[in-house]
This record gives sequence, structure tokens and C-alpha cells, in this order.
Amino acid sequence: MFFQKSSPIAIEALAKIIDAKVEIRDALVSDVGPVDTLREGIIGCYHNTKYKSSLSQAKHGFCILKEEDRHLLGDGVIGLFSPTPYRAFGKAALYFYPKPISSGEISVLADIHPSAEIGKNCQIDAFAIIKANAKIGENSIIRSHCVVGSHVQIGRDSVLEYGVTITNTIAGDRFYVKPGACIGQPGFGFHMDEKGHFDIPQIGCVLIGNDVQIGANTTIDRGSQHDTVIGNFCRIDNLVQIAHNVELGDGCVIVAQVGIAGSSRLGKFVIAAGQVGIAGHLSIGDGAKIAAQSGLMRDVSAGETIAGSPAIPIREWHKQTIALQRLVKK
Amino acid sequence: MFFQKSSPIAIEALAKIIDAKVEIRDALVSDVGPVDTLREGIIGCYHNTKYKSSLSQAKHGFCILKEEDRHLLGDGVIGLFSPTPYRAFGKAALYFYPKPISSGEISVLADIHPSAEIGKNCQIDAFAIIKANAKIGENSIIRSHCVVGSHVQIGRDSVLEYGVTITNTIAGDRFYVKPGACIGQPGFGFHMDEKGHFDIPQIGCVLIGNDVQIGANTTIDRGSQHDTVIGNFCRIDNLVQIAHNVELGDGCVIVAQVGIAGSSRLGKFVIAAGQVGIAGHLSIGDGAKIAAQSGLMRDVSAGETIAGSPAIPIREWHKQTIALQRLVKK
Amino acid sequence: MFFQKSSPIAIEALAKIIDAKVEIRDALVSDVGPVDTLREGIIGCYHNTKYKSSLSQAKHGFCILKEEDRHLLGDGVIGLFSPTPYRAFGKAALYFYPKPISSGEISVLADIHPSAEIGKNCQIDAFAIIKANAKIGENSIIRSHCVVGSHVQIGRDSVLEYGVTITNTIAGDRFYVKPGACIGQPGFGFHMDEKGHFDIPQIGCVLIGNDVQIGANTTIDRGSQHDTVIGNFCRIDNLVQIAHNVELGDGCVIVAQVGIAGSSRLGKFVIAAGQVGIAGHLSIGDGAKIAAQSGLMRDVSAGETIAGSPAIPIREWHKQTIALQRLVKK
Repeated sequence: MFFQKSSPIAIEALAKIIDAKVEIRDALVSDVGPVDTLREGIIGCYHNTKYKSSLSQAKHGFCILKEEDRHLLGDGVIGLFSPTPYRAFGKAALYFYPKPISSGEISVLADIHPSAEIGKNCQIDAFAIIKANAKIGENSIIRSHCVVGSHVQIGRDSVLEYGVTITNTIAGDRFYVKPGACIGQPGFGFHMDEKGHFDIPQIGCVLIGNDVQIGANTTIDRGSQHDTVIGNFCRIDNLVQIAHNVELGDGCVIVAQVGIAGSSRLGKFVIAAGQVGIAGHLSIGDGAKIAAQSGLMRDVSAGETIAGSPAIPIREWHKQTIALQRLVKK
Repeated sequence: MFFQKSSPIAIEALAKIIDAKVEIRDALVSDVGPVDTLREGIIGCYHNTKYKSSLSQAKHGFCILKEEDRHLLGDGVIGLFSPTPYRAFGKAALYFYPKPISSGEISVLADIHPSAEIGKNCQIDAFAIIKANAKIGENSIIRSHCVVGSHVQIGRDSVLEYGVTITNTIAGDRFYVKPGACIGQPGFGFHMDEKGHFDIPQIGCVLIGNDVQIGANTTIDRGSQHDTVIGNFCRIDNLVQIAHNVELGDGCVIVAQVGIAGSSRLGKFVIAAGQVGIAGHLSIGDGAKIAAQSGLMRDVSAGETIAGSPAIPIREWHKQTIALQRLVKK
Repeated sequence: MFFQKSSPIAIEALAKIIDAKVEIRDALVSDVGPVDTLREGIIGCYHNTKYKSSLSQAKHGFCILKEEDRHLLGDGVIGLFSPTPYRAFGKAALYFYPKPISSGEISVLADIHPSAEIGKNCQIDAFAIIKANAKIGENSIIRSHCVVGSHVQIGRDSVLEYGVTITNTIAGDRFYVKPGACIGQPGFGFHMDEKGHFDIPQIGCVLIGNDVQIGANTTIDRGSQHDTVIGNFCRIDNLVQIAHNVELGDGCVIVAQVGIAGSSRLGKFVIAAGQVGIAGHLSIGDGAKIAAQSGLMRDVSAGETIAGSPAIPIREWHKQTIALQRLVKK
């Protein structure tokens, strides 16, 4: 009901789109679906061992999986083989449910400054605000109640969902922001003083690469003097706090409710799981993985996996957990 | 100043409304108030032993309490007896301060699609957006800056406070949402890939029962393939994150800043205290209680009370805490 | 690009403005900048020992520092001496980048009730809502998509950034609120009941002192019967949850993602670092410091520094951390 679905497609055509191998022809695929409820015409994906038995018991439909898992397929289920099944499944889902595209309409109820540069074929909805000298790349969608502040730049093929506020920011192409996110407000910077704290003007900005996604009600403060930087392909979930001057390398994955304090730098493809806290002025190496709820108080080397509060290497953390259990038993 | 208060009421009439016993007549109750500042004409409630001495020292007014606590009443304080004093107090407060009711006015500054079905006597305020084919039940209030997305359904007697964004959602009656909440946006679903993460279209929706309340700036993502489900009577506090495909049974109480990762299922009347984190794909039994800041990494049985990160049965957690203190003393 | 900078200024004039000593004249200062990239005409600040070697290696520009750190100045860097260098630096930055001031314009696209009292020279932007009997002090700025609820009062020289929702609140002068914050909604108060929870009307309000700042997407609930109170000079960061009836003394510093449960009272100048959780009905003394991610379950004395979950004095917490490491090594 909420989505417009594309027409059914021949299995060999879909296999081509998703770059998977299939050994039959002349069957129609009509929709994607979860692997635990495969039905006639439905294509699912096996990428989590939790669903091994579901797959073996399935009697109809199609399943994308690795060639090595072929023996898991239930009788009557047709396999499509891919080295990256979940990615291939994403492509199949995208065939049936394409991304929203700009209507090219600019609402008369939007408030757009005459000096703003709006690219070709943009959609700007009612009660959106585009301030002076803002630039928005072509084919972008700015939904209702968004604010694009003065001098802000947003690249092409971007979508700002409802109620997003962006100021003091330069963002790349294919920028996608979920509702309620706030980007570019001044950070938490002041001289603490018993006679009354004294604010330090926050005069940096936020620099955001291409293909970045930001979660609902997430907050990203602008830099104080340097800039806050979000690398290409970063994925930031809901209710995350990114403080002033933080730098994220390309491809970082920041899960919901993580907080990163001022001036910390994350390398490329760092993963911070839910509710992690990272203290200020730290350096986290490329590919580091930080377990949920960890509290980081020291630098982390490239490739390290850490856990706990204060966070330590995950093997040590497991040992601690076990040692503590034994201690209690004594 | 902020509220319009109902007229004073005879004690016996109020007792009837709140279903409590009272042994006098002909006294007027003019307002509710905290038990530690009872005055002439004011009715309070005793339901927290912290206020035992306040009650005993009070000299005027009325107090709702259990019959067994009658001896705690200060001289001059008139008791109203109820087996559930706080519920009865809520009813008394509701008599004096009734819920806001719809003015039945639809602002000319609201942007309502002609295909939307607005029930009788709804109030829709300036700068609210109602998209195509949305349905809103009668007597509902949609305040300014809200968005009700296309095909969204909201039951009767509902209130969306300011700036609420709802898409891809079907909600029941008496739905109450505090300001800034975002419901129905796509979840955090993608294939992680060093060449650039690949999004998985999120094609489920959010199903919400009757009598549900959602807190300010809380985020509830829609399902990826299955749906995200919030049972009847659930109470969700501010800044909570509910990820895609999560299911909450009836009556769950989710306190502020809790995060629930994808596909976890909570039974009925589960209580998750503040800042709890629940990992993905877990199953939490009916009536489980999770202490504040706990981190759940395993299933929880019905009725269990757990604490800590990683969370363990609360008795063990208390032992751990004590063992650790002893260890330090050595 | 995002900021309008004031003209260069003579060093002796700037020294006077920022109340610092300088031993030369006739040099021009053109901007502020980070101490690790000092250049000709740029003034920085030394207040963090991390930047000791940057300062010693700098060859140009100006630096505000304590007189006792004079020997750290690189050759060619001119010192300005202040007992509070960071505060002095803030003043210098404020000279170059003054606070935004009201344009005095009230947008025809704002929706302002005729009974609202708007002070002299206020700026109210498009799609802002000012409800009946609200009062806004002079020179204040109310940006787009804000809501100032009925009977709300906001003092002079205040700024509400985009999309702020304020109801049931009385706030002092120089109130500054970052985008998306929600203040004054009803708290999480109900009688828990297996037949369906029963709401307790929340009839208090929020009282906010002078010079208070509130972070982006932060939520502050109004009192249930008493009021929620935020003292003068408090600084509250992003995504913080302040529950009903909480009281903060003057000058408290509440870092991002902290949650404070109902009816807890913080004294003056309490510092709660990121992601701290404070249980309900606690009392935290003046000047207490709470380390990041701590979970408070008991009262805290004035001046105490505590850490951990459950939180204990920080010295004990350090001992625990070390004892645990030793335990694992055995």
C-alpha cells in the first residue's frame, strides 16, 4: 500500500540485474520477501545462519545465496548464486521498489530566497525554507519543514526528509538525511566559569562527502575553528551525537545513540555499535570495531576490536566477564 | 496559568468519579496537589514511602491512599481509600485538568491533500501536512508542523503534538505522540562494503495498536521486510530508538534513551528502564524487567529481572558488584 | 563564507577588549585561528597541553596564554597574557564574529496570535507559530518552524533556532535554544496497570533562569505537579533528556545524551559528562562531577567526583578497573 511495486520480471533478467547466477529460465519473480516466508514468485536471501532451517523447509520461490550454501535450499526453491547475497538482494529489492525520484515541482508554499541556486528538476515541498545563497544540486528532493541555511551546499540526487535543519554545511552528492536531523548548529564550546560560562563562537563548518546518510533526529555540530568532517559513504543511524571538530573517515558505520565527543578522529570503515561513547581528542584507526555500549577513553589501533567501559580489547573483555562470574561463585 | 481548571467539586462526587471510599460529605475539593504541600481543599496521593512523614505532618486537605495506610494520615487530613491510589489520583487530576479536545477547526494554513480522509471534528493546525490517501480518525488533533504521510492511518481521538513526522504507519485509536517524534522512516539496513555500502530498500511499515504513547524526539523505523510492531497500551518515553522489525507486545514500558536493535521481540508488559540497550534478534519474555543502562546480548525469560552490561540476572549482578568492592579492599 | 567577519584591529585595542596584557603595539590582528596553525595576523589560544609543541614551533601570529606559560611561545609569536586564556580567546572570537542580531522583521508567513506580546525589535521568521498570550522579550529571534505555546514567556535577547517547540514554560533573558529541542511537553507519568496504563495529567511547567542554553533535539519535560527547574547559566548539550520535576542549580553543565530521571535535584555547577544516567529522586551536591557513561543510583555529596555504573567515587572506580585487570592476568 505504501509503495509502488514494479512489474514481475523473468528470473534470468533479474539475475542479470543483480549479477547472480541462475540455472533455470522462464519463471517469473513478482516480489522480494523474507526468507522465512518464501512463497511462489517471491525472492528471498540467505545471509544469516539463524534462518538455515527456514530455508531448508521452504517449498517455493527463489533464494539468493552463496554457491557453497546450495545444499541448504529446500526442495522446490530455486537458487540464485552470488558471492555477496545481501548486496544482490538489495539490488533485487531496488528493482521492485525503486528510490523516490524528484517530481520537479517547487511548491508555492515553500519559502525560497531569490539568491538561492536550485539545480534542474528539484522538488521542494510546502513550508520548506531555502535561505540566501544556498545551492542545491539537480534532481534533489527537499521535503516539508526542512531548512537549508544560507550558503549551504547540497550535491545532486540528494533527499532531505521532513523537518531536517542544515546550516553551515557543504555536503556532496546523493546525500540522504532522515527526518528531524540537525546539522551545522554551534557545538558545546564555552569557557566554564563560576561567574557564568562564556561562549566561544563556533566558526567552523560541516564538510560531508558523497553518498552519506544521516539518521532521524541525529545531531552533528559544526566545527569550532577547524571543521567537522564526515567522509564518503558514511552511514550514521538515528539519535547519534557528533560533536564539533569530529572527523569520520570514509565508510564509517555509526549505529544509533552513539556519541562522539569533540575533536576525535575516526579512520576509514570504523564501526561503532549502538550507544557507544567516544571521549574527546581520541584517534581511532582504520577498520576498528567498537562493541555496543563501550566507553572509549584512549586511542584505538587500526583493526582493533574493543569492548567495555572503559573499553579494552574484546578478548580481554571476555576474560574479564568470565573472571567476574567465577569471582561471584567463590 | 497554562491550564484551565474545572470548578471545585464535592468530596463525595469526586470519590465516585475516582472510585474511592470517603467517610465524610459536604467538603469541597478545589485542586490536586503534591502530598508534601497539602492545603485546605487540595487532594493529594500517598503512593511512595518517601512521603510518609510529609503525610503524617499534614494538617489540611485530602489524601488518596490504601486503607491499610490510614494510620499515616495527619490530623485534619481526610482520607479517600482506594486499592490503587495513584490511578485514582490520576482520575482526580483528570477531573480538574481534562485532556485537550479538538476545536474541530482546520487551519487554512494547513496543507491537506484532497484525497486524504479526515474524520469528523478533527483539528488540523497551521503548517501541518496531510498527504494523499492518509486517513485520520474523528476528534483527532494534528498540531502545527506535523506530517502525516501518504496512506498513513491514525485512529480516532488521537493527538499528534507539534512537529511529529509519521510515514508508512498504521496506528490505532487514542494514539498520542509528543513533539518531534519520527515514525516510519527507513531503517539502518545496508550491505556493508568497502567499495561503498549498498542500501537495502526498507519496504515494511509500522503497525501501532490502540492507546499507544510515543515520547518527544523518539525514532521508530519501519520494517525492512516484516513490519515494526508496537502493541496496545505501550508507553514509550523520549529519545528512544526502535529499529526496523522490532516487535513490542502489549503494555510495554520503554523509558527514555533506550535503544532496541533490529528484529528483537519483546513480550507483553516488558519494562526497559532508562538508557538500556537491546541487541538485535533477541527475544524478551512477558513481564521481564531490565534495569537502567543494562546491555542485553541474550534472550531473557518471562518474568526475569536483569541488570548490567552484559546483562545478567539482577541477583547475580548485585553479587558481582559486592565481589568487586571486596576485591578492591584486598 | 558562512560568517561575516569584523575588520582587522590593532593588537592593543584587541588586548583591551579581551582584558589581556600585551607588550607591543602597531600590529594588526585579522582573525582568530587554532593554535596549531598560527599565521601572520592570526590570534590563537594556548589552554590545552596537547598543543605545547605546536605553540613552540609556531613562527608567526599571536597567542593568548597564561603569563607562566610565556616560555612556550615560539620565536616570532607575540603573547597576550591573561589568567583565563580561553575566556579571553572567546572574547577575541566574539569581536571578529559577533552574535547574530535581530533584523526586527516579522515575517508575513509567521502565524502569530493577536494576543501574543512581542517585544520591540524582535525577528520572527516564516512558518513560526506564536500562540495566544505568549510573551517574547525585546530583540529576540524566533526562527522558522518554532512553536512558542500559549502563555509561554521568553526573556529578552533570546534566540530560538529552527524547529524548537516550547510549551508550558517560563524562560529568562538571553535564552538560547538549538534546533529541534522540545521543552514543556508532558512527562512520562502514569499508573502502570495490566489492564492498560492510566495517565497522570502533568500539570506543572518548566521554569528556566537567565543565560541558559539548550542543545539540539534535547527534551525537557514539564513538571507533573511541582515544576521542572533549570537554573541560571546552565549549559545543556544535544540529545539530553530531562524528566519531569528535575531541578538543576545554577551553572550546571550537562553533556550530550545524558538522561536525568524524574524529581532528581542537582546543585550548582554540577558537571554530568556524556551519556550519564541519573536515576529518579536523587540529590546531587554542588560542584559534583560525574564521569561519562556513569549510572547514578544514590545521592552524591557536594564536590564528589564519581564514575562507573553503578557509580562510585572515582578513586575506587580506578582501583576496581585495575583490580579487574589483575584478576584476568591470574
